[in-house]
Amino acid sequence: MKKLTILGSTGSIGTQTLDVIHHDPEAYEVHGLAAGSNLELLVAQAKQFHPKVVCVSTKSLADELRLELPSATRILYGEEGLIEIAASTDADTVVTAIMGSRGLNATLAAIQAGKDIGLANKETLVTAGHIVMKQAAAKGVQVLPIDSEHSAIFQCMNGENRTDVKGITLTASGGSFRDRTRAELEGVTVTEALNHPNWSMGAKITIDSATMANKGLEVIEAHWLFDLNYDQIQVLLHPESIIHSYVEFVDNSIVAQLGMPDMRVPIQYALTYPDRRPTPTDSLDLAKLGTLHFREMDYDRYPCLRMAFDSGRAGQSAPTVFNAANEVAVARFLEGQITFLDIERVIEKVLNRHQIVDVPDVESIAQVDAWARKEASLI
Amino acid sequence: MKKLTILGSTGSIGTQTLDVIHHDPEAYEVHGLAAGSNLELLVAQAKQFHPKVVCVSTKSLADELRLELPSATRILYGEEGLIEIAASTDADTVVTAIMGSRGLNATLAAIQAGKDIGLANKETLVTAGHIVMKQAAAKGVQVLPIDSEHSAIFQCMNGENRTDVKGITLTASGGSFRDRTRAELEGVTVTEALNHPNWSMGAKITIDSATMANKGLEVIEAHWLFDLNYDQIQVLLHPESIIHSYVEFVDNSIVAQLGMPDMRVPIQYALTYPDRRPTPTDSLDLAKLGTLHFREMDYDRYPCLRMAFDSGRAGQSAPTVFNAANEVAVARFLEGQITFLDIERVIEKVLNRHQIVDVPDVESIAQVDAWARKEASLI
Repeated sequence: MKKLTILGSTGSIGTQTLDVIHHDPEAYEVHGLAAGSNLELLVAQAKQFHPKVVCVSTKSLADELRLELPSATRILYGEEGLIEIAASTDADTVVTAIMGSRGLNATLAAIQAGKDIGLANKETLVTAGHIVMKQAAAKGVQVLPIDSEHSAIFQCMNGENRTDVKGITLTASGGSFRDRTRAELEGVTVTEALNHPNWSMGAKITIDSATMANKGLEVIEAHWLFDLNYDQIQVLLHPESIIHSYVEFVDNSIVAQLGMPDMRVPIQYALTYPDRRPTPTDSLDLAKLGTLHFREMDYDRYPCLRMAFDSGRAGQSAPTVFNAANEVAVARFLEGQITFLDIERVIEKVLNRHQIVDVPDVESIAQVDAWARKEASLI
Repeated sequence: MKKLTILGSTGSIGTQTLDVIHHDPEAYEVHGLAAGSNLELLVAQAKQFHPKVVCVSTKSLADELRLELPSATRILYGEEGLIEIAASTDADTVVTAIMGSRGLNATLAAIQAGKDIGLANKETLVTAGHIVMKQAAAKGVQVLPIDSEHSAIFQCMNGENRTDVKGITLTASGGSFRDRTRAELEGVTVTEALNHPNWSMGAKITIDSATMANKGLEVIEAHWLFDLNYDQIQVLLHPESIIHSYVEFVDNSIVAQLGMPDMRVPIQYALTYPDRRPTPTDSLDLAKLGTLHFREMDYDRYPCLRMAFDSGRAGQSAPTVFNAANEVAVARFLEGQITFLDIERVIEKVLNRHQIVDVPDVESIAQVDAWARKEASLI
């Protein structure tokens, strides 16, 4: 029986995590659910999974929630509530499925409380990998990847010596616009950009897939999760998203993880590791698919990925800037304020203006993050 | 420092095993080399690797060998010599790379002497899997697969619970004639059959690849090595031989092992497991390859594979008959006595005439083997 708290329960990863639990209810106990403002869904989730604690973003939402839930259910709100629900329940694993850089303090609180982390909030590692991984090691807690690529790498490294790893390759579908030239990207609409060919995901990450900023964040995340340098991390275009990623070992043997694109498999693996349990997903039939394709990554076609690698190599506060500028730029694109190609222009300008802060602590990260957001909103 | 004895040192797997050692001489010590009648190559190998014991097939070859090697080198011969070299050296691992069913007694002797087995002689498990795996378990020795498919499965199962395995898929290139219809197989020549598209292997196994009898032997081998029932073993046509095989787990996650087709990788893995070391092989570049293809196995096109599955399911002495009849039929094809399609006809007839012997011991296996060979030679 795994005891769980889910931060971001009404988002794409959160709902799929609860779907995993719904299909295997004997295996889990839900202790905490934290959401933003989707009260209707949170109430329905609370009624189905009976968490002891729930959290929403504001006091007024918390007051509304009070009327819907049993009086025994603790209700928290805001940034403080999020930190409390992350740390204070009896959960042994906290799934961090909050979007963006807001998840950092809650994640650190969960680590300090000795909880294992099911990490879907990649920005946590992108902005503060040096802090998170150090604290997790000090506390002896596991940071288990939920991203399909990192789960693939994690599965492929099972039972292997980390020193035998030559490098890893993250596969990338190429996103909604993979068959368009750069010229054809001028003037694409939000609706077109949100139409991801393989994966069912949230809006922000779908745009990040189209710009390859998401793959860039994954590269930085992989650097921290698997203690690899950036020369050991490659990205390969693989339109079908069937090979989710792979590890090359020093003997030139490659171990890859494959499957139909369905986030419930990596989500569940983070919850059941090192064991596995049946999932309500489709089995992969390679004969039926017939063909898998692979193309070299084009860093001119996807400058966001190039900038992510550069930010990762620069390290320190640079990935925080990359991430914050990207978040704001994507939000502005989704709101129709800037064009699709403006996203990369905004990120580049903010990165160019940034003075790197060495070994930033949580406070400096927050300052750099706020600065980059402000810059990105003004360009 | 790994201490090795190699049975079948002048064959395809034997020479490639020595090539692995040649490229990483600090890691290995060669204690014994056993060959058949290729004296010239055996002498060269002995001069390079300085085994303490060598073995050839006959007394006269042993006498010839005596003139070529230092007097300190023990020289053995015949079936008895093979058993002695397998059991009596200080080797901790014995690589069994002898073709056909002759390797069984030597393998059992090595197991009894507490040696780990690097298994390239798949007929050992096909004919006597119930004896070999039981004795290996009783002695606490490892049976490490060298076949690329089984090495792939073994690598993919690393760190996993065996009970979480749903099934495995062995990939098959389809062999020399994969693009021909059955009608086009009448009258194919030995030279055409020996032209394998991907792997550099011995003559017998190359014909076995073209008939898919080799994949059939691998299915039975996998049944014993990984303790799987035949419904858990599938075969997939994959012309490029890049995905060497894969495991599907209960959560529908698939872990696959990939690489350029080069036997030195699986050979070395059996020697270095659970560690890995660099190999003198090419790294796989999926972007350069561009495409991988997969097709469903056609059991009407490849009746030898169907017969192997049927023999495996029947169990007992049936796989011995399948293997022995196949060995004789392939030899007769290579000698020009029968046609390519006669190979499957010979096997089918011998299988139909066989009265199954339950739980055969080594002696019964030898008797059944001899009977099947005689039958196969007369059809």
